[in-house]
Amino acid sequence: MDVRLLASTPEAENLVVAAARLCYSSSSFEELLTWPEERKSALLRKVLAAGHLSVLEHASFTFGVSGISRACSHQLVRHRIASFSQQSQRYVNASGFEAVIPPSIAAHGEALRRFESLMEEARAAYAELLAMGIASEDARFVLPNAVQTSLVVTMNARELRHFFTLRCCLRAQWEIRELAGKMLALVQEKTPLLFAGVGPACLSGSCPEGERGCGRMKDVRAAFAAGTIP
Amino acid sequence: MDVRLLASTPEAENLVVAAARLCYSSSSFEELLTWPEERKSALLRKVLAAGHLSVLEHASFTFGVSGISRACSHQLVRHRIASFSQQSQRYVNASGFEAVIPPSIAAHGEALRRFESLMEEARAAYAELLAMGIASEDARFVLPNAVQTSLVVTMNARELRHFFTLRCCLRAQWEIRELAGKMLALVQEKTPLLFAGVGPACLSGSCPEGERGCGRMKDVRAAFAAGTIP
Amino acid sequence: MDVRLLASTPEAENLVVAAARLCYSSSSFEELLTWPEERKSALLRKVLAAGHLSVLEHASFTFGVSGISRACSHQLVRHRIASFSQQSQRYVNASGFEAVIPPSIAAHGEALRRFESLMEEARAAYAELLAMGIASEDARFVLPNAVQTSLVVTMNARELRHFFTLRCCLRAQWEIRELAGKMLALVQEKTPLLFAGVGPACLSGSCPEGERGCGRMKDVRAAFAAGTIP
Amino acid sequence: MDVRLLASTPEAENLVVAAARLCYSSSSFEELLTWPEERKSALLRKVLAAGHLSVLEHASFTFGVSGISRACSHQLVRHRIASFSQQSQRYVNASGFEAVIPPSIAAHGEALRRFESLMEEARAAYAELLAMGIASEDARFVLPNAVQTSLVVTMNARELRHFFTLRCCLRAQWEIRELAGKMLALVQEKTPLLFAGVGPACLSGSCPEGERGCGRMKDVRAAFAAGTIP
Repeated sequence: MDVRLLASTPEAENLVVAAARLCYSSSSFEELLTWPEERKSALLRKVLAAGHLSVLEHASFTFGVSGISRACSHQLVRHRIASFSQQSQRYVNASGFEAVIPPSIAAHGEALRRFESLMEEARAAYAELLAMGIASEDARFVLPNAVQTSLVVTMNARELRHFFTLRCCLRAQWEIRELAGKMLALVQEKTPLLFAGVGPACLSGSCPEGERGCGRMKDVRAAFAAGTIP
Repeated sequence: MDVRLLASTPEAENLVVAAARLCYSSSSFEELLTWPEERKSALLRKVLAAGHLSVLEHASFTFGVSGISRACSHQLVRHRIASFSQQSQRYVNASGFEAVIPPSIAAHGEALRRFESLMEEARAAYAELLAMGIASEDARFVLPNAVQTSLVVTMNARELRHFFTLRCCLRAQWEIRELAGKMLALVQEKTPLLFAGVGPACLSGSCPEGERGCGRMKDVRAAFAAGTIP
Repeated sequence: MDVRLLASTPEAENLVVAAARLCYSSSSFEELLTWPEERKSALLRKVLAAGHLSVLEHASFTFGVSGISRACSHQLVRHRIASFSQQSQRYVNASGFEAVIPPSIAAHGEALRRFESLMEEARAAYAELLAMGIASEDARFVLPNAVQTSLVVTMNARELRHFFTLRCCLRAQWEIRELAGKMLALVQEKTPLLFAGVGPACLSGSCPEGERGCGRMKDVRAAFAAGTIP
Repeated sequence: MDVRLLASTPEAENLVVAAARLCYSSSSFEELLTWPEERKSALLRKVLAAGHLSVLEHASFTFGVSGISRACSHQLVRHRIASFSQQSQRYVNASGFEAVIPPSIAAHGEALRRFESLMEEARAAYAELLAMGIASEDARFVLPNAVQTSLVVTMNARELRHFFTLRCCLRAQWEIRELAGKMLALVQEKTPLLFAGVGPACLSGSCPEGERGCGRMKDVRAAFAAGTIP
């Protein structure tokens, strides 16, 4: 899996602070945009703690994602306040495709052999169907969920925080959690004020999953507090 | 593929007409909701022709969809002004899954045999992985795009019209076009005024696909004019 | 202020439960739609407590709202996951308009007199501008925020719950809080399972407003527990 | 009215082209992001002509808007695929407010005097209500639509094109048309490829307003062709 930050709003923290101040002030945009650095962090903390998250929407982030499975991309595109451009299986030939191997399978010799043989079988079937004159948009019905795909993904900071809350949770599937973790690391490096303290729901309250929770809240909180993403 | 209309806004045409009239009138809701039947159709035609489509959003439609492939559902959930509940491959055991067979493959003996053998192989690999103790959320990486899935889908009439414009086009993939055609037939029976004249973009103008178009605009227009959905 | 429920999804609770079960089941729609009444409430409580709110989106509610101020409607239309049709001040003549009087002004003799005299003045200026040949879309620049307006509003149950969380809070402005309270009473009567326990954020946790909070959490919780909306 | 571009996605045209190419290609992001300059314009023209507008969503634009009326901002915030932060009349004291004067009133001596006297009256009433102890959130009910407001507005390029189609039309109200014109000039200067040929619906087809149209399509087309925004 490869995740990179292709673009983001320039001086995003500045912009978000200016938008937050505008709501309660009659200052000019010049004044709003030039506020002492040391006060920004305090204001943002206050605004975000009060749940006034809409100002975060002015900051936009675009990621290049490759090497995730179609199982993962099917989950990813369910987020609707986001923009996606995805490599098409209708138009791009998938011959000799690369597959994502789940860690539980990679760690299990017999399972891995069974997995690899099925992948090989699927590659062969796909190639043969194409050779028989079946269009790639139909031949792809034999392609497995494991096939790798690429996307360009854009979300604003408010939706990203929501995405991280859901997808950095240990109950999320491992692949989208890994994706979310990489995205979070990238935006926290770029705009730390906008993503301070962000992570699964249990970082800032009780676990919403209840009895279906992971039972490892302590470890999760400790990891995030230490600056790592589990 | 099985598509049914599970629910829709009661007296939806009435409601949409009342909303359209409210914008230009100081009448009470009682008056707005009781307008002579014969004038509704004319007003709606005028409002929709002028592109004032927002009033259609008050009418909501919920479909039960089963027997479509995961290839198709991945396209479907890209529509963001819509609500989806989908059968989960993480939690529902897919052993002995049913597969969607593309018509081009069904019509081609050799291709069909190759397709079926791959499906059988995938069913076996999936079952063996589960038997080895691999969780279904990981075993599913071997499942092909052809595996059938079920969804509950809700869209409002405005978004449905947009969906039909894109997905009833002969350039759309056959499976989502079949789905769109079934949905269109259901809503046209329920609320004919809201979906009069709806279909691919070429019904009401030139083909937006340009040189990539299907070249069969005449047939398409004739079919829709005759009340059939090609 | 007059608020009425113009339409809602038929058997909405049934539909939401069926959608929730679909995600974890391979049952047919017939089976999903006919579940013992007594189990629905328990399932919904569990689903909603776990934060799986998306199934609520299949239930749609349309309100007729009249007699609110343009100050209130400007706040209302900021909710973006919603559909609005609003009486237009460009096209509907506002001569002799009715005004919304804030309670704090109604209760204060001198303030009320000043308020009423300004309203009278605005009605006169508007009428005179029209008489001079100024179009209503420009004459309306003299109309005050207090002028009454009407809307048709559609939201789904998920967005409505979010709306109530924000707008039933004592920190919300009195007028939109009154509107939200009336809407909540209507939907709780119609579909009690979908809106059980719904109200401001403090009903289910700490006050997000922090030091800007109302300081009356106890009263608010007691009122909602007693089935009244403060 | 003052409109400025506060921020936009860096190298937005490059990013949009890369996203468009990704859908049909197995190239790496490095390759996608470094395409010969001279081919970008042709590709974008083709993609946009075919109606594949989703790639435009990766480009985001943030505007600072001040000096528009609350009548105009009420229209503006009806666009839902957008983010707004607006100066609050609940919290910001509006004493001695500035007013937007419609040109039809400014050009008519008697109307202007009547307008100005009402503004003066409203300023006085507002100040007196505050002096009587009425909170600004209630005193503002006497404030007219003409009162100036400020916003930070973020939209992506796809939604902006839609916004311009509606709001650059001569049938749109003069104030939001002026706003749209200024926004269009700013983004066309910044990213000409993304907004080439953009304007009211009549630039690229027949007038959707029908008999309610302005009847000046020829002039409108000539003006846009000459690089001016009427």
